[in-house]
Amino acid sequence: MAGPLGEFDRIARFFAPLASGFPGALGLADDAALIDPGAGWELVVTTDALVADVHFRKDDPPDLIARKALRVNLSDLAAMGAEPVCYTLATIFPSTIDEAWLAAFVRGLAADQSEFGIALAGGDSVGTEGPATLSVAAIGRVEKGRALRRSGAKPGDKVFVSGTVGDGALGLLALGGKVKDDPHGTLAGRYLLPQPRLALGRALQGRASAALDVSDGLVADLGHVADTSGARIIVEVERVPLSSAARAALAADPDLLATILAGGDDYELAFTAPEALPDTLAGVPIACIGRVEAGSGVAVLDRQGRPVTLGVSGYRHF
Amino acid sequence: MAGPLGEFDRIARFFAPLASGFPGALGLADDAALIDPGAGWELVVTTDALVADVHFRKDDPPDLIARKALRVNLSDLAAMGAEPVCYTLATIFPSTIDEAWLAAFVRGLAADQSEFGIALAGGDSVGTEGPATLSVAAIGRVEKGRALRRSGAKPGDKVFVSGTVGDGALGLLALGGKVKDDPHGTLAGRYLLPQPRLALGRALQGRASAALDVSDGLVADLGHVADTSGARIIVEVERVPLSSAARAALAADPDLLATILAGGDDYELAFTAPEALPDTLAGVPIACIGRVEAGSGVAVLDRQGRPVTLGVSGYRHF
Repeated sequence: MAGPLGEFDRIARFFAPLASGFPGALGLADDAALIDPGAGWELVVTTDALVADVHFRKDDPPDLIARKALRVNLSDLAAMGAEPVCYTLATIFPSTIDEAWLAAFVRGLAADQSEFGIALAGGDSVGTEGPATLSVAAIGRVEKGRALRRSGAKPGDKVFVSGTVGDGALGLLALGGKVKDDPHGTLAGRYLLPQPRLALGRALQGRASAALDVSDGLVADLGHVADTSGARIIVEVERVPLSSAARAALAADPDLLATILAGGDDYELAFTAPEALPDTLAGVPIACIGRVEAGSGVAVLDRQGRPVTLGVSGYRHF
Repeated sequence: MAGPLGEFDRIARFFAPLASGFPGALGLADDAALIDPGAGWELVVTTDALVADVHFRKDDPPDLIARKALRVNLSDLAAMGAEPVCYTLATIFPSTIDEAWLAAFVRGLAADQSEFGIALAGGDSVGTEGPATLSVAAIGRVEKGRALRRSGAKPGDKVFVSGTVGDGALGLLALGGKVKDDPHGTLAGRYLLPQPRLALGRALQGRASAALDVSDGLVADLGHVADTSGARIIVEVERVPLSSAARAALAADPDLLATILAGGDDYELAFTAPEALPDTLAGVPIACIGRVEAGSGVAVLDRQGRPVTLGVSGYRHF
């Protein structure tokens, strides 16, 4: 029981309206939600927990915290080629979270429910003496047997990534004053409000041999593909797509290459495919950045084919 | 990243073995889990978060903390008449959680997976500076259209509860030295290791007009049935089934009646039905404790039909 409102009041006032569009949520007034994937579909479930000052900054705008918590989970659905259906949310909040903050948080959820066609299906609301913590489980659906997996990359496949890489990690540094953003705040925006590539994930069904979302950092995540596929992945560093803001930051400080390739928080899709692909799929630019070979691990090569050594190998939160 | 092990190592070493029996978990090596309810079934999803020193005591045995976290969620599935399929688990742990604690915690999960025929389908493992926090989403399945709901109680129905009421709340007091337990530690055991009434929930399909699990306290939970059903519930206090340990505690201190009826943590099923029911269903004793009338709210009546006033109206955690 955090704050002046009890759990029941808080759910009724703030959260039940978010469930009104989803009959299976039963108005958040029952013990559990009912979800029917439909004949020929299976459900896809993922969960991510976010802790203040680990996964988001506690003074970030509450609506953006809410939307990021949803979107990092939706990004996992995108990586499976699934379409989103609903989500559950456990809020574990200290009593310092007041009603104005909660109202803004709920507005963020409502905005993204509308944008992604999902609804709240269930949840829990408890108090803590620790930092604000969110646990989201996103539930999607995919045609039976059509889910994208990490394990299907084969020697000879090409390696692709959507959008641009590194903006999220640079954005966190920009918010801390350690990197110069562009006048539009592009980098900070990418950190605060990632864009789950749901339409692209759907379009990759039948095209991609393996896929995942880039959350731990491009190199670490391609390492997951290499591990589960039993193959080696070669990344040609000059082919990794960068935004103009990231290019400017990198020109000013070449050491930021490690942040770009290993910093995480991109929420782009990385994937492999046996064939060449168009430059754009589902409205999203995609770039071929390398190839799959026999072997294991990930090698990042420079323009001359020499290995690039990065100081870090995976996502370490701030 | 809590503790000396990174997230990936922690998942691979401690949690991936818990997913080995469930193909849709994809070895916890993919972005999400795949769950196929089967033709004619729909999925049932519930989530509960538990915070150290709010929902469990941080020095409780780690295996019992794990099992309780699972069981309070399974109890919600029981209340819907569902059978359990799998669960996701987000652990939000401070760095004081060491590997020995984690190993015992995982042993508890494994024990209950075996007891209830479920497996870990996915999860997340993050660090916090706050108290240890768990967020579980339990996923079950129920034949389409057969889920038990809170909203179907009708005037003329009888009100039932399974097992015995109040032991869990008294058990918490017993663990704090405030109530005398029996020599077997019955009350403490009910608090530490609740028993989800899954078989009973299944048996209530087609028999119960409304059902829920008693987690907030018998009176508050029957209030939920009254609210969602648009009816009034009368409880005859002398018909509420008590264990001999609870009867002894109540005899020593009559003020404990409020704890028994409103203290929560029972995880029995409370339900309504239009007909009389046998004394035992699915191996669980059930007691008729009252009736449904037109109106609203819950009234607790004594032997003479006079209202019993309780000092509290719902579950307040310790």
